[in-house]
Amino acid sequence: MQPEKEVTIYDIAKALNISPATVSRGLKDHSAISKNTRKRIFEAAQAMGYRFNSFASNLRRQKTNTIGVIVPRLNSAFMSDAIAGMEKVLNEAGYNLIISQSLEDTGKEEKNAVTMFNSRVDGLIVSLSYNTRAIPHFEQFIRRGIPLIFFDRIYEDSECPSIVINNYEAAYGITTHLIGEGCKRIVHITGNESGNVYRQRFEGYRDALKDGGIEWDKQCLIVNTLTSGDGEHAAEAILKMKRRPDGIFVANDNCAVSCMLSLKRQGIKVPDDIAIAGFNNDPISRVAEPNLTTIDYKGYEMGEVAAKTLIDRLNGTSGVPITNSLILKHEIIVRDSSLKNSRTKHR
Amino acid sequence: MQPEKEVTIYDIAKALNISPATVSRGLKDHSAISKNTRKRIFEAAQAMGYRFNSFASNLRRQKTNTIGVIVPRLNSAFMSDAIAGMEKVLNEAGYNLIISQSLEDTGKEEKNAVTMFNSRVDGLIVSLSYNTRAIPHFEQFIRRGIPLIFFDRIYEDSECPSIVINNYEAAYGITTHLIGEGCKRIVHITGNESGNVYRQRFEGYRDALKDGGIEWDKQCLIVNTLTSGDGEHAAEAILKMKRRPDGIFVANDNCAVSCMLSLKRQGIKVPDDIAIAGFNNDPISRVAEPNLTTIDYKGYEMGEVAAKTLIDRLNGTSGVPITNSLILKHEIIVRDSSLKNSRTKHR
Repeated sequence: MQPEKEVTIYDIAKALNISPATVSRGLKDHSAISKNTRKRIFEAAQAMGYRFNSFASNLRRQKTNTIGVIVPRLNSAFMSDAIAGMEKVLNEAGYNLIISQSLEDTGKEEKNAVTMFNSRVDGLIVSLSYNTRAIPHFEQFIRRGIPLIFFDRIYEDSECPSIVINNYEAAYGITTHLIGEGCKRIVHITGNESGNVYRQRFEGYRDALKDGGIEWDKQCLIVNTLTSGDGEHAAEAILKMKRRPDGIFVANDNCAVSCMLSLKRQGIKVPDDIAIAGFNNDPISRVAEPNLTTIDYKGYEMGEVAAKTLIDRLNGTSGVPITNSLILKHEIIVRDSSLKNSRTKHR
Repeated sequence: MQPEKEVTIYDIAKALNISPATVSRGLKDHSAISKNTRKRIFEAAQAMGYRFNSFASNLRRQKTNTIGVIVPRLNSAFMSDAIAGMEKVLNEAGYNLIISQSLEDTGKEEKNAVTMFNSRVDGLIVSLSYNTRAIPHFEQFIRRGIPLIFFDRIYEDSECPSIVINNYEAAYGITTHLIGEGCKRIVHITGNESGNVYRQRFEGYRDALKDGGIEWDKQCLIVNTLTSGDGEHAAEAILKMKRRPDGIFVANDNCAVSCMLSLKRQGIKVPDDIAIAGFNNDPISRVAEPNLTTIDYKGYEMGEVAAKTLIDRLNGTSGVPITNSLILKHEIIVRDSSLKNSRTKHR
């Protein structure tokens, strides 16, 4: 089958026996054209498969109605929630969402940025890759006045708006909870500390120990990439430690759960021998036995807020100063994996 | 700060003291311009922040290098894997990915289709919403020769390529496994049967019972929306059944795990009293205790294949007939939740 030719306003004009100028103005909903004629024009356009030429008109207006999103990975529970939240807000506001993933590689992130720039996105929402140390690849957006919003993994020295949670406070709170349950030696398993997220979680953990009268021991820090395989390796390392810990705080649930299940297979009782806490409140935290104590941290909401902040900037209606960071709420969810002391355990 | 003005070929020409025509041809890598000059032009273009005008040149070529994707929800483990797979393939081939979600609503799916059409996507990849019964909203793509690929939740009467697994065979196989483990009364919990996915899983289950010499009882079918809340309600309903089942096959892992945990809380032993199997091999299936028997079904690979099929169509290099369906492999993953009889249980 031969694909149909593009339908033009001339075709519609011919079909309705009116002038192309009338069709053109009718399609723009111009008040000079009678309501009835406008209706006929719209119906004919739809029936004939006319494509509204937003593409060409966007070119004239220098606006594409597309927003670019660059994230480390699309397939994590947190990130797919965040993107679902963005899509909902942006779609309702008439924007398309172009997505790409850096796969935790700064080089790919740079290429993604070039593609987004040449695609003339109206704005950009970014969560940085693991290894990104500087952001010259985003300078051209800033220079050109194209709004750029960071979320979750942000660039702290930038003047762009950032949407985050208070990672320091969350980590401080959950470590203090472990101390309150009687833990005296707490291991922290975390990711690369150069980014804001893991560094702040580490600092919160370290300061909570200090304020709880526990001296921090360098042996108690395990840095890896927080995969479930890393959780198993961490469990092995912990079982070999000369002074075995009685608490573990892991910077994500995925790694926390696999570490916990590995320890259980080796006969360790959780939480009695070792209490465990994670971060993210992923679905697996509610399924693992014992259920995992963790930090709830709403990806969907973060995506919505990032999108709304961007739209406000595009509309010039932003109520907050340009350099402001938005800090969203987090919540400590206490479950059985950390309840060493408390008599009545939570469900 | 005033945003910078758009950099033009005239600016580059002025900076290098050469003619705009030379710059224009240099940027197109024209052989009439010396290699050295081309290099100088490219370097100046980059340093000055020139945006390659793919937008305008795409308009001339009637090609946008964007692919639209419409899915029911972005935030499920399966779907985010599928989209990650598509992004990888399309990004490497120089395409942008525009995504939208129907939120299981045919009306929103229709609006998404209009947006994609007016955005002039070069091709479209779709997984249908729960309630979509017909696809007139995709007719304009077909008429215009814009490749349309369905995956997972497909439209069976369409001539468009479809990427699926054999849902019938997978369900038949896992039900036969439950029968082999000694189950004599097997409940099936599933979603809306009007789409291909859940109808075929039901048919596979029903035929496996028949071939296993078990008469199917209408009481054994529970239809809901397969959320974790639905799993809890299903567990209540099962506990109230006059003839209690000794096996349950659920059409996704999310609902299977919550049903299993609810039954366990009511004192039911899994698999001894009731064996349970799910579908999808989501992360929670490996974390729940006992680990859940399920069907492995690679979302990432399905996304890659859908994207490759689309690119082949766009390049006119498709080796397969246009109407062909691609059926990807699935695998039954046997874990402890279904091993009623087998002495040595799997890990």
